[in-house]
Amino acid sequence: MKIIKGCPSTSMNDYQLNTTTIIRHAARNFPEREIVYRNERGVFRYNYNEAYQRIKRLANALKKLKINPGDRVGVLDWNTNRFFELYFAVPGTGAVLLQMNLRIVPEELIYVVNHSEAKLIFVDESLIPVAEAISSSVPTVKGYVIMTDKNPACFKTKLSPVYSYEELLADAETDYDWPMVDETSTYSACYTTGTTGRPKGVYYSHRCIYLHTMEAVCYTGINWNDNFMQIVPMFHAQGWGFFFAAAFMGAKIVLPGRYLVEDIGSLVELMIEEKVTVGCGAPAIFMPMFNYLRTLEEKPHFGGARFLSGATEPPLAMMKGLKEYGINIIHAYGATETTPLAALNLLKPDMESKLAEEEKWDLKRRQGLPVTGLDIKIVDPEGRELPHDGKTSGEILIRGPWITGSYYNDSRNAESFVDGYWKSGDAGTIDSNGYLKVTDRVKDLIKSGGEWISSVDLENSIVGHPKVLEAAVIGAYHPRWEERPLAFVVPKEEYKDQITKDEILDFIASRFARWQLPDDVLFIDEIPKTSVGKISKNALRNKYKDYFRSFKKC
Amino acid sequence: MKIIKGCPSTSMNDYQLNTTTIIRHAARNFPEREIVYRNERGVFRYNYNEAYQRIKRLANALKKLKINPGDRVGVLDWNTNRFFELYFAVPGTGAVLLQMNLRIVPEELIYVVNHSEAKLIFVDESLIPVAEAISSSVPTVKGYVIMTDKNPACFKTKLSPVYSYEELLADAETDYDWPMVDETSTYSACYTTGTTGRPKGVYYSHRCIYLHTMEAVCYTGINWNDNFMQIVPMFHAQGWGFFFAAAFMGAKIVLPGRYLVEDIGSLVELMIEEKVTVGCGAPAIFMPMFNYLRTLEEKPHFGGARFLSGATEPPLAMMKGLKEYGINIIHAYGATETTPLAALNLLKPDMESKLAEEEKWDLKRRQGLPVTGLDIKIVDPEGRELPHDGKTSGEILIRGPWITGSYYNDSRNAESFVDGYWKSGDAGTIDSNGYLKVTDRVKDLIKSGGEWISSVDLENSIVGHPKVLEAAVIGAYHPRWEERPLAFVVPKEEYKDQITKDEILDFIASRFARWQLPDDVLFIDEIPKTSVGKISKNALRNKYKDYFRSFKKC
Repeated sequence: MKIIKGCPSTSMNDYQLNTTTIIRHAARNFPEREIVYRNERGVFRYNYNEAYQRIKRLANALKKLKINPGDRVGVLDWNTNRFFELYFAVPGTGAVLLQMNLRIVPEELIYVVNHSEAKLIFVDESLIPVAEAISSSVPTVKGYVIMTDKNPACFKTKLSPVYSYEELLADAETDYDWPMVDETSTYSACYTTGTTGRPKGVYYSHRCIYLHTMEAVCYTGINWNDNFMQIVPMFHAQGWGFFFAAAFMGAKIVLPGRYLVEDIGSLVELMIEEKVTVGCGAPAIFMPMFNYLRTLEEKPHFGGARFLSGATEPPLAMMKGLKEYGINIIHAYGATETTPLAALNLLKPDMESKLAEEEKWDLKRRQGLPVTGLDIKIVDPEGRELPHDGKTSGEILIRGPWITGSYYNDSRNAESFVDGYWKSGDAGTIDSNGYLKVTDRVKDLIKSGGEWISSVDLENSIVGHPKVLEAAVIGAYHPRWEERPLAFVVPKEEYKDQITKDEILDFIASRFARWQLPDDVLFIDEIPKTSVGKISKNALRNKYKDYFRSFKKC
Repeated sequence: MKIIKGCPSTSMNDYQLNTTTIIRHAARNFPEREIVYRNERGVFRYNYNEAYQRIKRLANALKKLKINPGDRVGVLDWNTNRFFELYFAVPGTGAVLLQMNLRIVPEELIYVVNHSEAKLIFVDESLIPVAEAISSSVPTVKGYVIMTDKNPACFKTKLSPVYSYEELLADAETDYDWPMVDETSTYSACYTTGTTGRPKGVYYSHRCIYLHTMEAVCYTGINWNDNFMQIVPMFHAQGWGFFFAAAFMGAKIVLPGRYLVEDIGSLVELMIEEKVTVGCGAPAIFMPMFNYLRTLEEKPHFGGARFLSGATEPPLAMMKGLKEYGINIIHAYGATETTPLAALNLLKPDMESKLAEEEKWDLKRRQGLPVTGLDIKIVDPEGRELPHDGKTSGEILIRGPWITGSYYNDSRNAESFVDGYWKSGDAGTIDSNGYLKVTDRVKDLIKSGGEWISSVDLENSIVGHPKVLEAAVIGAYHPRWEERPLAFVVPKEEYKDQITKDEILDFIASRFARWQLPDDVLFIDEIPKTSVGKISKNALRNKYKDYFRSFKKC
């Protein structure tokens, strides 16, 4: 990006955007506002002032443990108050909080720790086995802090040396003189794990998280009257980081600890008890929440709570159902690389008044409008920007101050970033109102003559045929068009050998342009599946990639 | 400020915070949302997309007029849609929008234009005489653009060369490739005028206005459902710049044009007509607004509109009265140097539930809590930080990313800034809940033995005595304490010669510490006044400054 300089200004431009500013503000202006946390022993509460005093002690303890600015400090923990404290203490000293994903295999966790060269790891009592599983393979780690008030000797762990979180705090001084950390320095690191290849390091800057925090406030309207519950696990993409937004505005924070979907009943009871008004999560948690609410004799009402929902499209029945309990599900779109807020579904005033009820619900399932401050575009395979007509689908590219511009120390950067944009790998459309809709993963798109064809759209249409059991569509190499769609169809048992290629093509013809239709349809007995039961397009691609080389269209 | 560096991050930290991002976002995602403007000919409306097309044409026109990045471009205008367009077009090209205050005398305006070396001035038709009054004394100005759709020859003005705003736009191309302007470059300049000395230049950076805009969104909760009216004149401190916040979130904007308090009836009617929900202003406009509302037979209701009120303490009767019309007056605190949002009065949830009604109203008159991201402290005359006890008064110092760090090219900087903070010149207290209350101007405080004594507090107490008509308190030089308070009292006619120094001191003794009481009380016939009727402390200071040199306390 070419940056031009104008007239020098007189503003305090060197005042750095820092996460320390956020917690200090909460402690100064909302010292009495509660932070509620739950662990195995019950529900506890302290306040921003008390949390801040502990954060300062923790910063002093880090100094004693020889953690210097720039050093990486790993954390293995659930949604606890101690994780919350670490999120401010570690980056506040200039060090980096390394988020350790509890859901990845030891080999990947070892890669993450070694790649980041973490020097110290904080471990929740319950996660000592996870740390032990990797400890012999992470030579940069010089110590472990067990998040406990017990003496570390109680645990008979092979981790060494070990310290106790509460003992460190008790021994530390309360006063800590926070440095002003350069805003482009890393505050936290998170590794994103794809289906293939090694995890990739996203190193978020203080500036990135500060601006994302303000943006989260702008788009949720969270303020000092709200009660925010941290539902998303805090060990990945900082659990979306909306707890920063809560602290920014002096909202109450509720940290539910370890058990989320595993004990949905007690999570919902905690929500009711603490009068939660803002949260974020995914259908994977909102669905069981909805089901649990339906079992209650006394119907609770959350008074118009705003719950952002990410990961996948929220089911309509769930959105409508939760609305009955005073919960608004707001579909949001993002990824680890976007910190993650990139788009959010809101209805414009004229839509509220003019659209029919069902049209509104249909619209609410989309990913929504890009939030202010980001550039989002859709492009064809050659990188040309595509029109916002709600039909033309292209890869979604994103840039902006809280978007990742590269992976940390990674040789795969060239394929993931282009012209200053991050390539999301998602394919989608943008309509004339600016609403983004994700339609596909790009790897499932077919590149034909410089245009995308959606394999998922073709599959969904083909399985609508009454004789079809399953379908898969891949792009096979074509000498003239680069790729052309090739369809595989498994007929229902009773229609085996009683269905033709033309029947299939005629059936779907009205929904596609002529050039988007498959060049051929092959009938097979079974679609190959992966170990977890997903369609294995790779198996089909490997076998049929050269199908059109010798193919003669009749 | 010492800044430390940590680990380099992978975020897009070079994506600059720019005002262009804000209007481009509004045009992309809320193209159809209205901007309503009123002028002599009636009420008109266009939308963000149409405004944005004109802004791009304007940027092209500026290029044709040879305005380069860094150049200053003056504007003489009311709250119009063209001023709104200029606020994005001029800084978007990298040039500086110079706000020309319509309320200052020609000599000061000449100083402002010459000090800023403005190259071009935009002038509303109605303000041609203002431009003509200075045009022979501003050699850097190379041309004038009259904000009109008429041919400039119609105006028979001595301004030369002159251009017509609408002709420039009509001739310009629509496509404009916005540069990414370095965020520390100036977006706009505003000169602050004190009671003494030359105006001082505040040169706001793009970064400053961008962060201030987000902060304004956070603290007003303004969003796409809101209708914002620009009440504060746009020619000073960008009229508080909340129209940026409106554009940031896709809110409707209402620009009332020239007549504000002068035609309060039609302003209120426009508010009702356009269903205004957010605004900012001062008691000087809210008071007449309230009085007008009371004359209406049909009582309008604004449904909980949020109106920020600055400049002076909002009268209780006005706040309570407007509440009946569904308007919440929110007391805000700031200055030209703070862009201006520095503190804002909000009640915390426990206050809402626990305080008695009158206690709440009393609290609402205070300046409120510092907004997130700023450091605000009160200090004694030696610069030592004072406690937050709600009693101890000190000078209010402020620093943060949207606070001015120096005046542009000005020799008076040393007296206005200290340790990275801006010295507000206001004296105030901060209570244990963090609420700021402005008590005085520092120049009216008395420095005694390293402590402040409030002359205004003493005066207010003394005039409470039943025999007293008027009182003034000054600080007079004292060889040991630097200054000591000296009180002047005008007795009511009927008590002349029937009141003693001890009576006065006994009367106020319980409200002050012993060392805060005046060392002497002088009875006089009249307190000297300025030409506008304010107490002239300077006259008293000049006459009595050495009073304590020879004073023997009895």
